[in-house]
Amino acid sequence: MTATLYGLGVGPGDPELLTLKAHRILTASPVVAYPAPDTGQSFARAIVSGFLAPEQIEVPIVVPMRVQRFPAAEVYDQAASTIAGHLDANRDVAVLCEGDPFFYGSFMYLFERLSQSYPCEIIPGVSSIMASAAALKRPLAARNDVLAVLPGPLSNEELEARLKTADALAIMKIGRHFNRIRVLLERLGLAACAGYCERVTLGEERIMPLSEVSDETAPYFSMILIYKGAEDWIRALPAGRPTDAE
Amino acid sequence: MTATLYGLGVGPGDPELLTLKAHRILTASPVVAYPAPDTGQSFARAIVSGFLAPEQIEVPIVVPMRVQRFPAAEVYDQAASTIAGHLDANRDVAVLCEGDPFFYGSFMYLFERLSQSYPCEIIPGVSSIMASAAALKRPLAARNDVLAVLPGPLSNEELEARLKTADALAIMKIGRHFNRIRVLLERLGLAACAGYCERVTLGEERIMPLSEVSDETAPYFSMILIYKGAEDWIRALPAGRPTDAE
Repeated sequence: MTATLYGLGVGPGDPELLTLKAHRILTASPVVAYPAPDTGQSFARAIVSGFLAPEQIEVPIVVPMRVQRFPAAEVYDQAASTIAGHLDANRDVAVLCEGDPFFYGSFMYLFERLSQSYPCEIIPGVSSIMASAAALKRPLAARNDVLAVLPGPLSNEELEARLKTADALAIMKIGRHFNRIRVLLERLGLAACAGYCERVTLGEERIMPLSEVSDETAPYFSMILIYKGAEDWIRALPAGRPTDAE
Repeated sequence: MTATLYGLGVGPGDPELLTLKAHRILTASPVVAYPAPDTGQSFARAIVSGFLAPEQIEVPIVVPMRVQRFPAAEVYDQAASTIAGHLDANRDVAVLCEGDPFFYGSFMYLFERLSQSYPCEIIPGVSSIMASAAALKRPLAARNDVLAVLPGPLSNEELEARLKTADALAIMKIGRHFNRIRVLLERLGLAACAGYCERVTLGEERIMPLSEVSDETAPYFSMILIYKGAEDWIRALPAGRPTDAE
């Protein structure tokens, strides 16, 4: 008998968007680990909190939000060591991952530390890109469209070069880069075909045309989807009203 | 009371990769529609067959596989009319979509015909891109990588231009374009960092380095993932042995 490390995709926020497999493994795992901020609650844990049982051992992986230089190697070294202890004691460990574990997720830092030594299985999850297109009610990519996914921290120069080479685009990890990106999209004439999504699939979900966003920053879990040529359709989106919680 | 049209993502193949929400809506829907080939079984239906009940009304949407000019407008007109009849009779209709409904899926053809007239909800699903990266056990995109998704039917010229502008790439809808794409990747020096995935998450799943694929064509549900700079890691992939069914 050997314990297994699971990278468990828990989806974009709605607990019902866990897969049947993630739900089965989550509820059967004696140990549940998850990323957590140093203040406030873990988003990954919050998604699945209704499925957790008191007897499950929880391992929060506290990553200080103010650490700019990622990955915070010592944090993941320490977490890997704790998780290895549970695996050595023959306890399966499920690591909760927002969205999909291998789509820009921090699970890779644990995977690279542990997957050589322990059986490891990745359970793919619903990504926030797909959930955002569903919330906007318009296919992001269709037919022979080229789709590009751009991380918000890229420089304006890098973003600009890539914004020109795809038919449809998703800009992720926006956060404090929000205003810079909006100004860039305005300069490139792309703001009018950009939709903004925040906390998709959650009760406080907000979707609206990018041009209607009044904030200077955006939550980390927000996204801009760019539908080239769809200015009319973007204009018709509701302007900032929370959508119906589902 | 108004019936709802659901675009239901059923994931990449493993029935356990349905979300809890898709499972709930599927089992509660009196009518289930799905794309089907003119010969052979529907892949979308096969994924969920274990969840279907005899009293559910099934609406196969038969799209002849030899029709080259997509979309086959008459097929979708006819299907939309049949589905509208069920919605008018106050029966919810769940349309099964492989992977995610709005990620290069044919559901858009029904959505554009029906969403103006009926309540419509999209249930996002696990995409084959995420499932392929999980099967290969390597994050496709991380940190500030740019990811591009390319449809295989694009011309060599279009593919080549895009292959140069991203850090990580997924080439979808390969099928009969497989050999042309492989030759192109070889010419560009990218074949050695390309992984091939076929029927991911199913019992007959195959993953291997692209260079080990002996076939001249590939199933429609296959994918090439390109990890720039990861030649050594690609070389270490198993060469064509089916992976363990999970």
